[in-house]
Amino acid sequence: MGDEVIFVGKKPLMTYVLAVLTQFTSGRNEVLVKARGQMISKAVDIVQVAKRRMSPEISIPNIEIGTEELRGKENKTRNVSFISISLKR
Amino acid sequence: MGDEVIFVGKKPLMTYVLAVLTQFTSGRNEVLVKARGQMISKAVDIVQVAKRRMSPEISIPNIEIGTEELRGKENKTRNVSFISISLKR
Repeated sequence: MGDEVIFVGKKPLMTYVLAVLTQFTSGRNEVLVKARGQMISKAVDIVQVAKRRMSPEISIPNIEIGTEELRGKENKTRNVSFISISLKR
Repeated sequence: MGDEVIFVGKKPLMTYVLAVLTQFTSGRNEVLVKARGQMISKAVDIVQVAKRRMSPEISIPNIEIGTEELRGKENKTRNVSFISISLKR
């Protein structure tokens, strides 16, 4: 099975925490939590809460940050930072 | 020389970007950018902008996330996520 990607948006924090935990309890070994812009802080919170819930089973083997070009209105592009946090059981 | 730590707060983004670049141009080889809570997203933006400005000279050898206990009013503690991004020239 490949990585399950959980993309962080405007839903409540615990919605994403439960999504992460559900992936692990259903047998997956690796989950990716991704977020852009202002949601990056929330992604870190989600990972920390999930990690505490399943501690010490979950580790964070890799964290990546970067910039993505988003195409907005009138076809203008803008740069948005992203984070991608991998969680391993 | 040890790491220079730049702690991200409420100042404008470019203030921190310039602080990072100043450290590197003054001869330092490693700079740590740290942030807590909502400032985490901003820290990622700062690192990305600084990286673009000095690309390809700067790399990101390590990113750490975690939880800190802060003691607030009435001596209550609350958990806050943090990020620590190391930049290397």
